[in-house]
Parts: sequence; C-alpha cells; structure tokens
Amino acid sequence: MNVEYINPFLRATLNVLKTMAFTKAVAGKPYVKKEEVAHGDISGIIGITGDATGSMSISFTETCICHIVSNMFGENISNLNPEVEDAVGEITNMISGDARRELAEKGITLQGAIPTVVTGKNHAIKHQAKGPTIAIPFSTKAGNFVVEFCFSE
Amino acid sequence: MNVEYINPFLRATLNVLKTMAFTKAVAGKPYVKKEEVAHGDISGIIGITGDATGSMSISFTETCICHIVSNMFGENISNLNPEVEDAVGEITNMISGDARRELAEKGITLQGAIPTVVTGKNHAIKHQAKGPTIAIPFSTKAGNFVVEFCFSE
Repeated sequence: MNVEYINPFLRATLNVLKTMAFTKAVAGKPYVKKEEVAHGDISGIIGITGDATGSMSISFTETCICHIVSNMFGENISNLNPEVEDAVGEITNMISGDARRELAEKGITLQGAIPTVVTGKNHAIKHQAKGPTIAIPFSTKAGNFVVEFCFSE
Repeated sequence: MNVEYINPFLRATLNVLKTMAFTKAVAGKPYVKKEEVAHGDISGIIGITGDATGSMSISFTETCICHIVSNMFGENISNLNPEVEDAVGEITNMISGDARRELAEKGITLQGAIPTVVTGKNHAIKHQAKGPTIAIPFSTKAGNFVVEFCFSE
C-alpha cells in the first residue's frame, strides 16, 4: 500500500513549504483515497518513472495558495494568476525532488517528469496507477491542502 | 519548437481514437499556446521522461468525451462518471505510447509515467517544461478536443 512513500512525501512537503514559502503546515493522518473528491482550485501534478511508475499531486484552495505565495513573494497576492501557477509548479517539483532524494537513500530510484498545473474551481484528480492512492491532508493557518500519490510497481 | 514531436502525437491521437473508440477525428492546425486557456471538462495528463522531459495532456468537452466513450463501450454514456475517467486515462496512455514508439524510431527514447485524470467544468492546464507548449486541436462530429505537449530537452 505504498506506505514506504508516505513519510518521504510528508517530510518533503513540510520542508518545502517551510524553506521556500516560510509557511508552517501541519500534516493530518494519511488515508487511502477511496473515491475521487474535489480537492481544490489549483493543483500541481507530476509524473514519476523509475523503480515505480505513477504520479503525485498537490491541491490547494485559492485562499490557501494565495497565503503561501504571498509568504513566498513577500507581497500580498489575492487571486490566482500566472505567477501563482508557476509557484505551484515549482512547489510540486521541489516536493517531488525532495521525496525522491529520501527514497533514493532507501534504494528506490525514481525520476520526476515536469509538472503541469491545473486551475479550475473545485476540480477533482484521479490517479491512474494500479496501486492505491494515498492522500495526506495538510493544514495551514490560511486553509488546507492535500498531497496525493499513487504508484504501480 | 519541438516540431519533431507534432506528427507523432497527431498521428497517435487519430490512430487511438479510430482503433480504440471507432471515432473519426480531424486534426486542425497545431499552434504554440501563448497563454493558458480553458480547454475542457475532463483531461488526461501524463508525465514523460527520458531524452526529453515534459508532459502531454488531452482535454475534452463533456459532450465530446461522452460521444467517444459511447462509441468505445457500445452504449450510450451521457455524463462524466468513473468509467469515463478511466477511459480518458487509457486514451492518454495509449496516445503517449503510440507517439513514443514513433519517436523511438527517430532515436528519441522517452518513458511515460502513468496518467492522472482531472475533472472540473472549464479547467485550464499549464505545462511547466521550459519549451513552448504545442497545442493540436481536433474536431469530431460531437465536438472538439485538444492535445498539448511541452518538453524541456
């Protein structure tokens, strides 16, 4: 059930938000996503290949990402714009990279593709790899976001 | 401007739609996507690694994908449901595979990740690779869809 992936992605997310966006996030309990649920207004999605093949996504509400990106840029951002989209791409890339570094130390070698960013009120994401989709919910003082990943091995 | 990728993705799309979904699609003129535009109600997105790194997406209107999936399944499908989502994932996978096979013959070796499927009225996709995003519009008798790809080399 891909449990060995949970902590690397969880730690990578906390680390990237903290170091890149000066944002303290708190992780909730990871769960197996049983059905697709609308998770946010903007998502970064990245494909992963190598010893396992799959995808990872991170989905934010508009309020939450505006808060995070305001912290990153040091200026007040109040709505989704191309800079926010690029920031979501960069956050996705860095979380994937950080998690893959930790997994490589455990002998799991993965390559990351390049992210795509989806915007649209209340969209839903469905990962298509054969394994279960693991979701890790996070909260910040400005709202919630969720990291998901799914691998076939 | 990634032109060598255009024909493999164009041909793969026509071929997969025809053989898998008995749907005749007509390709319009490919263009460089200058800004993100809402393209559809359901999209398949796949990450690609190897000699080039990037992503490909295919976005359908609800009407168009319902027509295509009705052809695939031989029964009338009138709204987005989990079977339609899985079909979009499968179509994405097959187009990526078909195009990568043709590119391999030209000496460009690529690996595909596993697709994710996004649903949400009128969502937009932004590819994050460094190169230009090429869009190929397609029409069917039930509506339009668009294939996009973007690679950093």
